[in-house]
Amino acid sequence: MIAPACPLPLPHAERIVLGHGSGGKMSHDLIKRVFLPAFDNTALRAGDDGGVIPPMGTLRLALSTDSHVVSPLFFPGGDIGRLAVCGTVNDVAMMGAAPLYLTAGFILEEGLEVATLQRVVEGMRAAAEEASVQIIAGDTKVVQKGKADGLYITTSGVGMVMEGANVSGVNAQPGDVVILSGPVGDHGIAVLAARGDLGFEVEVSSDVAPLNRLTQAILNAAPPGMVHVLRDPTRGGLATTLNEIARQSQAAIKIEESRVAVRPAVAAACEMLGFDPLYIANEGKLIAIVARESAETVLQAMQATRYGEEAAIIGEVQASPQGRVLVKTPLGATRIVDMLAGEMLPRIC
Amino acid sequence: MIAPACPLPLPHAERIVLGHGSGGKMSHDLIKRVFLPAFDNTALRAGDDGGVIPPMGTLRLALSTDSHVVSPLFFPGGDIGRLAVCGTVNDVAMMGAAPLYLTAGFILEEGLEVATLQRVVEGMRAAAEEASVQIIAGDTKVVQKGKADGLYITTSGVGMVMEGANVSGVNAQPGDVVILSGPVGDHGIAVLAARGDLGFEVEVSSDVAPLNRLTQAILNAAPPGMVHVLRDPTRGGLATTLNEIARQSQAAIKIEESRVAVRPAVAAACEMLGFDPLYIANEGKLIAIVARESAETVLQAMQATRYGEEAAIIGEVQASPQGRVLVKTPLGATRIVDMLAGEMLPRIC
Repeated sequence: MIAPACPLPLPHAERIVLGHGSGGKMSHDLIKRVFLPAFDNTALRAGDDGGVIPPMGTLRLALSTDSHVVSPLFFPGGDIGRLAVCGTVNDVAMMGAAPLYLTAGFILEEGLEVATLQRVVEGMRAAAEEASVQIIAGDTKVVQKGKADGLYITTSGVGMVMEGANVSGVNAQPGDVVILSGPVGDHGIAVLAARGDLGFEVEVSSDVAPLNRLTQAILNAAPPGMVHVLRDPTRGGLATTLNEIARQSQAAIKIEESRVAVRPAVAAACEMLGFDPLYIANEGKLIAIVARESAETVLQAMQATRYGEEAAIIGEVQASPQGRVLVKTPLGATRIVDMLAGEMLPRIC
Repeated sequence: MIAPACPLPLPHAERIVLGHGSGGKMSHDLIKRVFLPAFDNTALRAGDDGGVIPPMGTLRLALSTDSHVVSPLFFPGGDIGRLAVCGTVNDVAMMGAAPLYLTAGFILEEGLEVATLQRVVEGMRAAAEEASVQIIAGDTKVVQKGKADGLYITTSGVGMVMEGANVSGVNAQPGDVVILSGPVGDHGIAVLAARGDLGFEVEVSSDVAPLNRLTQAILNAAPPGMVHVLRDPTRGGLATTLNEIARQSQAAIKIEESRVAVRPAVAAACEMLGFDPLYIANEGKLIAIVARESAETVLQAMQATRYGEEAAIIGEVQASPQGRVLVKTPLGATRIVDMLAGEMLPRIC
């Protein structure tokens, strides 16, 4: 384990750096040292992207929240509004829940054009409609010019855990099969390209999409208890997300690099930039870790949905080395792939 | 009515100004023109500070969210962390619900001292403990230096609507009695003083506090259906909140100015600044509008709780003039008091 089991005292003048928002090692370290000791509870300790509330009667609810600070506000395939709705819809869906209601908190920078806000709100409306969720409460704050960057949106969501579902990053078991819903890296490269500082042209659209129908199809396809983990590999990419699951479940995850699809344009951009696509953010992909006997059924159910057409089995869960992610390269070697260490692409979501 | 019933086309280059975050007339206008047309649904249309979800089985849940951008981060009586927890606890409580679970989304500015974040998180922890709520999910984003102001926190909350409770800003009825839980203006003046640019000394602490035990006491004191409205007069102050209720309920609210308590230090500061305390933000006060026959019982129940000791009846609901708030001055004259028009104190919460 890289992070210490007990929080260490923090040096007096330690400061927040961009890496603390990477979703990788530094983010996890900050959570372990600052947030977990203060807010300790079962749901938070599980380390998932949302929390499942203790049952109220027969009802199990999942809650999640995400702040969105993507720059630029608009990019091929989406905008901060679509991202804010899909991000939270997906976090709730990854708890095995059907997302139902969202709230939205806006932090607006003085001077933002109202027309820009309207475009963003339209992106939210369309995504909410696609995901069949309602935005039932909101809040708007305005800060002085230079105290934000256009606008930030924090969405929170509540959903009903589907009957028989029990999915969490702690549930991966040796022998389980790892399924990935499609090619990786589209979102990160699309946003980077939209910033206009790549120095070359890339034709990539963000994959930002609501995945609740896909998770529903997965859960409906397998008998109760056969789907162990659902997780969307956002910040930090596939490699970081698999590491999170391996640590939470105290198991090893082994994948074959050749089975992880990467679009040619994304692969080319990554090669020119020296990036590994396994670390690039996605906003419309998920990993499903399922019992071996249900893998084929789940895969077919995924391939029958809009956002799972390119789903593929990419690996399996093993007993050891605990907490590690192993990647078998096309040449047959096996390398250990860790979480994202610092920050590669700030403000990608 | 000031705002048009139908959204008007927006001039092309209209820009967000601080007044759009005031909680007053401009905020309502923005909601009506930009957010409501896109996200239209029953809960949102009710115009309360949160939404009550359609019942799931016998369970009625209330959801709310608030972004917090207060400057400075620490002020007498509280900090942005305590404010973020209490703000959402109170919004959920004002729906007649017992707040249970919170989520928190952090937007951190690069360069923020981790020790500062820890102090804020401790403020959140203590407030959550006091309110008996759990923070079960969170998210952290980091933006570059100069793209935020230290940190912003968006909290969302879910609570269970108490049995028999049916409170909303639309429910005020002629004959109802208006009760205020204590003196107004403490929070706004305390934050303003903490900015150090008043030019004189003021000894005022923010009233920021979780009010869920107070709302519980109110709802338990009266027979089902007798408590019509609960609302905390935050941004825009008592005058703006009463105007919201008057408009939502299509009734008039008449209060006696002499019955609205204002601490001497707050009154003095307002006089020097030319502010009307009726427009100054509170973060630990509420208005209860109850059927006349339950008013005395509710008042006594409020006075028996920690944050309701200074509760007082300040006025009543009348049939007309619809949507208006009338204030009887100490000299016996009656003036119409409107919502806050622009922005008086930016970034107060």
